[in-house]
Amino acid sequence: MTVNLKNFLNPKVKLSKMGEFQELQPINGMEVSSISADLYGDGRDDLSLFYFPDGANFAALYTMSKITSASINWNLKIKRHFVKALLVNTKNANTFTGIKGAQGLKEIAHSLSKALTIKLSQSPKGASEIIKITDLLFASTGVIGEDFPYLKIKNRISELVKKLRAEQNKFVWFKVASAIMTTDTKPKLAYEECKIGNKLVKISGIAKGSGMIAPNMATMLSFIFTDANISSIFLRAILKKVAATTFNSITVDSDTSTNDMVAIFATGKAKNSKIYNVLDPKLQDFEKALHRLALNLSTQIIVDGEGAKKFITIKVIGARSMTMAKNIGFSIANSPLFKTAIAGEDPNWGRIVMGIGKSGENIIPNKVQIKIGDYLVAEQSRKAKVYNESNVKEYMKWDSINIEVNLNIGNASFTVYTCDFTSDYININADYRN
Amino acid sequence: MTVNLKNFLNPKVKLSKMGEFQELQPINGMEVSSISADLYGDGRDDLSLFYFPDGANFAALYTMSKITSASINWNLKIKRHFVKALLVNTKNANTFTGIKGAQGLKEIAHSLSKALTIKLSQSPKGASEIIKITDLLFASTGVIGEDFPYLKIKNRISELVKKLRAEQNKFVWFKVASAIMTTDTKPKLAYEECKIGNKLVKISGIAKGSGMIAPNMATMLSFIFTDANISSIFLRAILKKVAATTFNSITVDSDTSTNDMVAIFATGKAKNSKIYNVLDPKLQDFEKALHRLALNLSTQIIVDGEGAKKFITIKVIGARSMTMAKNIGFSIANSPLFKTAIAGEDPNWGRIVMGIGKSGENIIPNKVQIKIGDYLVAEQSRKAKVYNESNVKEYMKWDSINIEVNLNIGNASFTVYTCDFTSDYININADYRN
Repeated sequence: MTVNLKNFLNPKVKLSKMGEFQELQPINGMEVSSISADLYGDGRDDLSLFYFPDGANFAALYTMSKITSASINWNLKIKRHFVKALLVNTKNANTFTGIKGAQGLKEIAHSLSKALTIKLSQSPKGASEIIKITDLLFASTGVIGEDFPYLKIKNRISELVKKLRAEQNKFVWFKVASAIMTTDTKPKLAYEECKIGNKLVKISGIAKGSGMIAPNMATMLSFIFTDANISSIFLRAILKKVAATTFNSITVDSDTSTNDMVAIFATGKAKNSKIYNVLDPKLQDFEKALHRLALNLSTQIIVDGEGAKKFITIKVIGARSMTMAKNIGFSIANSPLFKTAIAGEDPNWGRIVMGIGKSGENIIPNKVQIKIGDYLVAEQSRKAKVYNESNVKEYMKWDSINIEVNLNIGNASFTVYTCDFTSDYININADYRN
Repeated sequence: MTVNLKNFLNPKVKLSKMGEFQELQPINGMEVSSISADLYGDGRDDLSLFYFPDGANFAALYTMSKITSASINWNLKIKRHFVKALLVNTKNANTFTGIKGAQGLKEIAHSLSKALTIKLSQSPKGASEIIKITDLLFASTGVIGEDFPYLKIKNRISELVKKLRAEQNKFVWFKVASAIMTTDTKPKLAYEECKIGNKLVKISGIAKGSGMIAPNMATMLSFIFTDANISSIFLRAILKKVAATTFNSITVDSDTSTNDMVAIFATGKAKNSKIYNVLDPKLQDFEKALHRLALNLSTQIIVDGEGAKKFITIKVIGARSMTMAKNIGFSIANSPLFKTAIAGEDPNWGRIVMGIGKSGENIIPNKVQIKIGDYLVAEQSRKAKVYNESNVKEYMKWDSINIEVNLNIGNASFTVYTCDFTSDYININADYRN
């Protein structure tokens, strides 16, 4: 199949740059399509469909916000362990869109179930099967509170289904990863493979989010597809564990979207032998591969953080508990003052001290050691004797900055990833809707 | 007495603007002085002394940070209900300055107690009295982690004591309010008076802080002086109550200083009759006056927020509890995305929705009503039917923006004050130490 590359890309995506992205592999048991419902008014792709003809096991994690999108409400309403399709729209979050937003989504679900049922009836094997609206998942990202353009979307469903193809070459992945973007400047793609028993298993993932961050748009969405044969309940256990140190360890600006969603779909087509125990050693490689992939996508989100110029890794070690390490890591990472100091390439470690202090965690100030890169900057509640500001100043010019805080009161640790805070962030967000 | 106005002012303070500030009244039973220890290298005032010859009842509230300045540690170490003097230095926070920072402070305390004891011995009445180091309070604000310049300060103590004057005309107040500034662009002064019984009571207060905010410098300090005769234990009860809805209801950037301190000193010279009960109706006027003064100083801090162009009032009403209202108010006020939208004059109320949702409070989305100014923008989980974007856009151009969130599930409320987030904030903080 030849993919028509014209008229679908986000205007920010340069096709010539495609070679710079990782090449994802096709996932057996899945079909993909993405088209434009002209929600942006410039003809860019804004609708994406992932279809599993034989269904897929799945697990999903959603935003912790108390106000959630109609899409997320839909997904949460029915306990599903098996789905047939996922539809994603951009431009509109379908949040705070009232009853109309929920009703519009239902109409779309009906159209989609019908169109997929017709498609199935035309295939050799599935003549009598019906795809129900409860077999469908949805994700939305975009502005909150604008009327949900359900008719525009509904009218494009049959075309979207018609374009479904099992072929997933690098163009297809690049196209669909671009179709879910909002303020992102780059699509985010990652691929891993591993063995479960003696079977090779593929994992292809895409994500969007220009930060965890911007509520009206920079929802973090990540969709991961694998041909592994793993039950939904085990998928959920692994995804939760992996997300804790990947998707849940990044922050751009401390804001939480009403639409965040991370999901994994497993078609089972790799035909690995059935797993009966989540602790089965055969799953370890899969978990590691999924962790690499999730960390890869998470860091791509940070690097593409709004206005970000520097990638910052904050490692908190020697904590009494992981929760303590995590709270302190995020307290530093979310501090506008810390982030602006990094933007200014200023080794102003007092702001790290401030971040530790305001976390409220019961640390012992005298035991804390702070490193910037390999340079010890503070210990014993004071500037380190070996501290040499000109060395650290030089280090601060790098694009990737490592901060290590050793609390020296335990063995737990946590790593948080973030970016700096530049004037560009302000400009992007002040003028977002203009 | 003629105050020499040369060579003392913060270079940012224009003497010609003095007329724009409220004129504070002298507090009987107090002497004041401020001089330069040349900590900034430009000769501006950086040391201030408040001396109570006959002592003062007092109450203080300190930062909640787990890492605190040597000054705050000093103040916390001894349970005092009566003090003789307060010394304030700027430029250096004396935080994370190790044992040397604490020892330096102790040396300063010894010098100050000696100098004040000598001064006292020269006065007609106090020949045999000794001022102990435990009679002294300290406050510091400035950069964290730099060696504490205790010798420079110590060497200026006798001069500082020599300059103490009971006279507190408007120049004296303006001078001392300027002497405690760091990144502030304006001194902050407020005056109130009230009656306790049949006695007129004066309250003069000063503050600094360019936000709650900047840890290395924008510590919030506020010192309030009154001639009322109120016991320390009642002062504390009133101060805590007042601060909850004034100093503790403002935020510039969610960062918490290691040095924050709010204190009230009462000399008793107004000679009002003794109060035996904190609920005594005679105290009500005093509490109201103190509240007006504290709110006045708090809003001066917000208006002087780093890079701030707009003053924002967020009123959360109809909450189940004050804590719920407060959490939601701060969740909105601390959101960089909300603050940048205000800077961009964009009525992007979706970011208010986001702020409500991420607070984690159990609201009922369908009951929430959001107003910008007098305009209802959202209710019943959707854009309000009466919403007219061009009207609200016009309103967003004002300097002072009111947001009201009615949760409609209870009777509790809380008001949070904040400012917008502009590129200037980033620039000020990225380049702070340069």
